[in-house]
Amino acid sequence: MMVSPDVIKPIEWFHGRVRYLDQTLLPAKVEYRETEDESVLASEIKRLAIRAAPLIGIAAAYGVALAINKVEKDDPAQRKFAFERAYTLFAATRPTAVNLFWALERMRRVFRANEQEPLDKLKHNLLAEARSIHEEDRKMCEQIGLHGAELLPTAAAVLTHCNTGRLATGGIGTALGIIATAWEQKKLKHVYIDETRPLLQGSRLTTWELSMYGIPATLVVDSAAGFLMQRGLVNAVIVGADRIAANGDVANKIGTYGLAVLAKHHQIPFYVAAPTSTIDFDVASGALIPIEQRASSELFQFFDQSFPGGDIEVYNPAFDITPNALVTAIITEKGVIERPTAESMSSLRSHSELSKRAGQAEVST
Amino acid sequence: MMVSPDVIKPIEWFHGRVRYLDQTLLPAKVEYRETEDESVLASEIKRLAIRAAPLIGIAAAYGVALAINKVEKDDPAQRKFAFERAYTLFAATRPTAVNLFWALERMRRVFRANEQEPLDKLKHNLLAEARSIHEEDRKMCEQIGLHGAELLPTAAAVLTHCNTGRLATGGIGTALGIIATAWEQKKLKHVYIDETRPLLQGSRLTTWELSMYGIPATLVVDSAAGFLMQRGLVNAVIVGADRIAANGDVANKIGTYGLAVLAKHHQIPFYVAAPTSTIDFDVASGALIPIEQRASSELFQFFDQSFPGGDIEVYNPAFDITPNALVTAIITEKGVIERPTAESMSSLRSHSELSKRAGQAEVST
Repeated sequence: MMVSPDVIKPIEWFHGRVRYLDQTLLPAKVEYRETEDESVLASEIKRLAIRAAPLIGIAAAYGVALAINKVEKDDPAQRKFAFERAYTLFAATRPTAVNLFWALERMRRVFRANEQEPLDKLKHNLLAEARSIHEEDRKMCEQIGLHGAELLPTAAAVLTHCNTGRLATGGIGTALGIIATAWEQKKLKHVYIDETRPLLQGSRLTTWELSMYGIPATLVVDSAAGFLMQRGLVNAVIVGADRIAANGDVANKIGTYGLAVLAKHHQIPFYVAAPTSTIDFDVASGALIPIEQRASSELFQFFDQSFPGGDIEVYNPAFDITPNALVTAIITEKGVIERPTAESMSSLRSHSELSKRAGQAEVST
Repeated sequence: MMVSPDVIKPIEWFHGRVRYLDQTLLPAKVEYRETEDESVLASEIKRLAIRAAPLIGIAAAYGVALAINKVEKDDPAQRKFAFERAYTLFAATRPTAVNLFWALERMRRVFRANEQEPLDKLKHNLLAEARSIHEEDRKMCEQIGLHGAELLPTAAAVLTHCNTGRLATGGIGTALGIIATAWEQKKLKHVYIDETRPLLQGSRLTTWELSMYGIPATLVVDSAAGFLMQRGLVNAVIVGADRIAANGDVANKIGTYGLAVLAKHHQIPFYVAAPTSTIDFDVASGALIPIEQRASSELFQFFDQSFPGGDIEVYNPAFDITPNALVTAIITEKGVIERPTAESMSSLRSHSELSKRAGQAEVST
């Protein structure tokens, strides 16, 4: 019996608590957890129970709402303390994903706009903003899906990396949203999924999602990507992004850069799908994006089990940087930027983004 | 306390039996097993308890010696039956590694040359041939190490894939033999080791070997190779080979081809180290080399444990083909072939190789 993919709810606001799927247990266990404690939520983000750039933006917004909900006395100092503490807490969870900082900034704007409002209204408006971030992400995914599916040839065979679907976003996903949309449009023939070491988001999460759609998919080890391309088995690579610099350089899951080099070598298009909230116009190029280094123990972890790794030195960068020159197109909810450059990317600077920056400027004066 | 690396004896002839290290248990357990049953030995090769092209050549030779040792009656039909049965048994273990077929052909030549000799002498001469194959491999590794170390710059930082050391050969290894030799010559600064999914020969075996030498080494996931090169952390890639075609195309562990493309993109030399027994002059190009497909379950295996993989479709080629154009040099015991082509490779055709072919021709007439 096939389960409909829209049952996947990686995060929800649920009667004053945040309800989330513990993604570290997938696919063996589909276990939802609830918390009203923002610091629990923050450590769940660090632990990757809640993961992927768009989703952790949504989670951080809900986390701020949780923190403010706990304030009992309508005192400006207490409100401010609770907000700033939550902001700092979530900002420290994952350094690479920019959606996190983008969502926190949106929450800060609402916090400031409501400084003179009573506590209840502040709580209400912060939660409303978190819900908007969630709902907007859902809509952005839909648009990304439509824009991206247009680029694919008929009977497309696509290679993807990591997990960028419903488990990663507030909607159908980014790269995987395009795959789902192309499938619906009957343009898709096959998906190859990199297992995505060390944490196996491909074999644990993407295979699980695609099986719900019934999309024909094949799992490979990360290092088989070149072989697939050499044998002509894939005609496009589609990945997500954790942060995109102003010039179109892309930070994404470790291995993305290698896929981009391979795609170029085989003259296969290399697409990056992300909402504009993933673009960091404050960062001129990928060289300036901080790369999160994660624990050595991840290389001795498999599904939900840990193995003794001995005293082997490990280098475990969670992300890498793909230079814009290797990117065929960046697919956002606002449209597609082919061969991204600082100039072409600037067309994506939105009203909201500009007003966010204006808001920041206001503050610093 | 550091253990000397020369205690590693992946295979030995031991009082009429074959004694071998069960490599599937490494590094958690160093467990030697013994058998006098050639069919046990053959299944141990399939199971990868004994693995890597040079080593399985040696193992197959000893396996033929075991089979002949069991013949009790000095009868030509029985001798022939036992030999052919063993030949077929070992030839069917792993299709890609050519050393296997090379070693079996050497054993066949000795078998034929001793057809008129008494059984005892046949047994003695077949075992002597197996021992020669073993000992020659030891010497070839030494020569490969010396030739390869010459190519490395001082303070070399090298990336390697899979396991190509003492556990893979009759001596110090091929790619890892070069690394060990360069270390001895104080030319080596650092080694980066790909974990080498799915079977983790890098994290299980190569880290273990290098730790015995005390060589500074860092383990990375396979997909981090591009990132290492992009950051300028490695200045050469050295790998082994399972079969090299007459034109210098290289079949080696899945992921090798991707490393070669990445090395080219970063203008880093890409070296392949192998004894000439790995060259198959009967195969004109890599396209003709059979690629072994292994079980899906390997993608749901980690160290010595298996995980339920669900009903996910898996594509698990054990090897890939690197075209000669991406190979900076092939390093053999006889010397170095830069930018290999069919023409330059033909200089490696040895007397023994030529006489082997002459022998085959004789037989088929």
